Amino acid sequence: MIPGNLTVARNDDDLTSPPTTSWLVEATRTVSYSVSVSRDVFALDNPSLATAGTVGAGETRRRFVVIDKVVHEIYGDQLDRYLRHHDMTTRLCILDATEQQKTLDSATEILHGLDEFGIDRRREPVIAIGGGVLLDLVGLASSLYRRHTPFVRVPTTLIGLVDAGVGVKTGVNFNGQKNRLGTYEAPTTALLDRNFLRSLDRRHLSNGLAEILKIALIKDPELFVRLEESGGVLLDEHMQGATPATELAAREVLRRAVHGMLEELQPNLWETRLERLVDYGHSFSPAIEMAGLPDLLHGEAVCIDMAMTTHIAHRRGLVSDTELGRVMNVMRLLELPVHHVSCTPELLVRALVDTTRHRDGLQRLPLPVGIGDATFVNDVSADELAIAAESVVRAARTVPTGAQ
Amino acid sequence: MIPGNLTVARNDDDLTSPPTTSWLVEATRTVSYSVSVSRDVFALDNPSLATAGTVGAGETRRRFVVIDKVVHEIYGDQLDRYLRHHDMTTRLCILDATEQQKTLDSATEILHGLDEFGIDRRREPVIAIGGGVLLDLVGLASSLYRRHTPFVRVPTTLIGLVDAGVGVKTGVNFNGQKNRLGTYEAPTTALLDRNFLRSLDRRHLSNGLAEILKIALIKDPELFVRLEESGGVLLDEHMQGATPATELAAREVLRRAVHGMLEELQPNLWETRLERLVDYGHSFSPAIEMAGLPDLLHGEAVCIDMAMTTHIAHRRGLVSDTELGRVMNVMRLLELPVHHVSCTPELLVRALVDTTRHRDGLQRLPLPVGIGDATFVNDVSADELAIAAESVVRAARTVPTGAQ
Ligand SMILES: NC(=O)c1ccc[n+]([C@@H]2O[C@H](COP(=O)([O-])OP(=O)(O)OC[C@H]3O[C@@H](n4cnc5c(N)ncnc54)[C@H](O)[C@@H]3O)[C@@H](O)[C@H]2O)c1
Ligand SMILES: NC(=O)c1ccc[n+]([C@@H]2O[C@H](COP(=O)([O-])OP(=O)(O)OC[C@H]3O[C@@H](n4cnc5c(N)ncnc54)[C@H](O)[C@@H]3O)[C@@H](O)[C@H]2O)c1
Repeated sequence: MIPGNLTVARNDDDLTSPPTTSWLVEATRTVSYSVSVSRDVFALDNPSLATAGTVGAGETRRRFVVIDKVVHEIYGDQLDRYLRHHDMTTRLCILDATEQQKTLDSATEILHGLDEFGIDRRREPVIAIGGGVLLDLVGLASSLYRRHTPFVRVPTTLIGLVDAGVGVKTGVNFNGQKNRLGTYEAPTTALLDRNFLRSLDRRHLSNGLAEILKIALIKDPELFVRLEESGGVLLDEHMQGATPATELAAREVLRRAVHGMLEELQPNLWETRLERLVDYGHSFSPAIEMAGLPDLLHGEAVCIDMAMTTHIAHRRGLVSDTELGRVMNVMRLLELPVHHVSCTPELLVRALVDTTRHRDGLQRLPLPVGIGDATFVNDVSADELAIAAESVVRAARTVPTGAQ
Repeated sequence: MIPGNLTVARNDDDLTSPPTTSWLVEATRTVSYSVSVSRDVFALDNPSLATAGTVGAGETRRRFVVIDKVVHEIYGDQLDRYLRHHDMTTRLCILDATEQQKTLDSATEILHGLDEFGIDRRREPVIAIGGGVLLDLVGLASSLYRRHTPFVRVPTTLIGLVDAGVGVKTGVNFNGQKNRLGTYEAPTTALLDRNFLRSLDRRHLSNGLAEILKIALIKDPELFVRLEESGGVLLDEHMQGATPATELAAREVLRRAVHGMLEELQPNLWETRLERLVDYGHSFSPAIEMAGLPDLLHGEAVCIDMAMTTHIAHRRGLVSDTELGRVMNVMRLLELPVHHVSCTPELLVRALVDTTRHRDGLQRLPLPVGIGDATFVNDVSADELAIAAESVVRAARTVPTGAQ
């Protein structure tokens, strides 16, 4: 903890002029949290969930647990057994955590439960078990309750494992706009357990793989090769590793994806820098996602964005023919869409205007350089967008070369 | 900005055991804001309000202004003239910011206005004008909107000028409990203008003076002397400085109070340290305030707490007879109550149990040492409380010695 400073510029002794004393308050806050891979968090002999976020000595066994309704239907019994085994007194808050219910009202519902439970903030971290929607809701509620109550994240979707579960953002939709309200608040711990993916449907697996592909494209050529080699089987096996080889692949893909994500997030945890590599795939996707509702999941819209921007990069000579082909093939392998009817040139231009406004007047558009590297550009034109969108459609029609 | 670290402990190559890779994410955030004394923020030639929180170059003249209804009735015309003079396009959100309306719903009302206004977060700080209730509401809404939107505080009550306006806490009441929800979020700037006190009623002035007296008692003997000398006239003149001498007194009292408060807040901005001198007067007052509703204002309950704890300190030999007399006289001078019927020995014991729980199992009770210094104790007994409460009542009955 670096305490910072209090500086005063004082000028109030001269009665002939108004007082102009002023203070500059500077303080530094250190945030620290852990993200841990833990296989089977409900295994009775795995203490990680029971002890997560407690500081040894004064810990208590009371917990407020918020869990996604669907996840509870599948894992409720296991959770229950685990909590009983560890002598934990809990209050379960089962939430219908759909994107439509990702509202301030749902956060308030959690807050009422939390308040009735009467939590001891220093010893009883809130436990959140679910996908990105649930994690975002519990994160927001926890950050508001008494101006901060520690919470532990247990993501159960692939998006949760590699994205929503590992950063510090919380949020709810508001006034028809995604994540319009929220806070930056680190969890105490995130426990990453691939076991949950067993029950996740194939489309949501693909959806999560889109965010993993994003990390591969902007910074990790090795991760890209893994996806190329094993993307299909990872999908088929829900990343459960049926053989030693696929177990290694699943571990490696998850580890590299989380590592790459954290490397990007850590130096810019509060998004003060506007040039963010992790924004790759997220420049046009918000508009595409909205226009494509209810057709498209988030990761699907991200993939459409990435397909198009890879084509832009290709036309600029940043990505070779071969590389473009490999990227398109992997997208197909991961069963991700590369185009959607709603994705017109007009929509793309509008999306870019919006994104530019949010990035303080510059496009700051991440573009891939080869596979596994990226750059930022500020000069993408409407023509380029139209041409790229067209080439994606054309490319999507051609038979993949060398695809599995 | 100190970037912090990303540390990895990796163990996932051995397929005979589960993977246990884990990351520690550490990052450091620097918060910085200014608190400035500015006389007459609505004077046409005073640019401070028009430029507050903007960063020169890219500033725009659009502002979302949230103002307390009562304050708007009194100062609305002046504000309007000021904004027009500075060519500012504003949207006014007039709020009935009473303690009863200090709710998540009121914050949501602000958020709807903000969203409709379509703010450019980097150039158009929200402006909050009002007492502590309004400032806390706008602070909360601003901290939630897009995970942070800059805001400027213009406190219009004495509590606002020396307390609610200068720290980083925001909040609303929830489920019948005071400030149960909130965030820590610094304003860009707080502009302190004593002019507003002209229209503040005498009782709310006394209420604010209680928080100033708190600062004097725990750390500023010179401030105490100022209150002793000028407390009465400051009240009579609403701190407007009718003569050069009282103008100097008003300036000095405000400056010392703010300075003392900031000195205490800055090293502990996020309240991670539980021994807080500024908690003086706030150990028993929450219970007293609740029990005394609707009789007591916050500062009044704080004064009752301070009177009692000064008596405890006196009995322990920390405060002399003379000092005790001076303290009680100043409380009387500031027209603050030192006792309330609801303040029974039972209530005090219950209050201490509650406070101890919130301070993680230790009383951490600030007690005055003489006038202008303090210490923390952990061993106040029920007997001591009862005796102190009784002596306050007795002392309150006696004629003040040396009082003006
Ligand atoms: N905070 C962040 O940094 C961040 C990052 C990325 C995404 N997000 C947010 O995350 C949300 C998307 O998250 P998501 O993709 O996890 O969606 P989700 O939370 O809606 O979950 C998808 C579906 O899967 C179900 N489900 C969850 N776990 C399951 C399991 N193990 N087995 C079977 N079904 C399961 C859910 O009930 C839901 O129907 C969005 O709201 C997005 O804004 C946040
Ligand atoms: N965030 C913090 O650190 C902090 C610190 C202290 C208090 N607070 C909060 O502040 C609130 C109390 O603040 P307060 O005492 O300013 O009360 P308040 O905001 O309720 O204002 C008191 C009354 O004065 C009126 N008023 C305001 N300015 C006026 C003016 N210039 N002239 C005439 N009337 C005026 C208001 O309409 C109201 O009726 C509480 O909710 C408390 O929790 C917060």
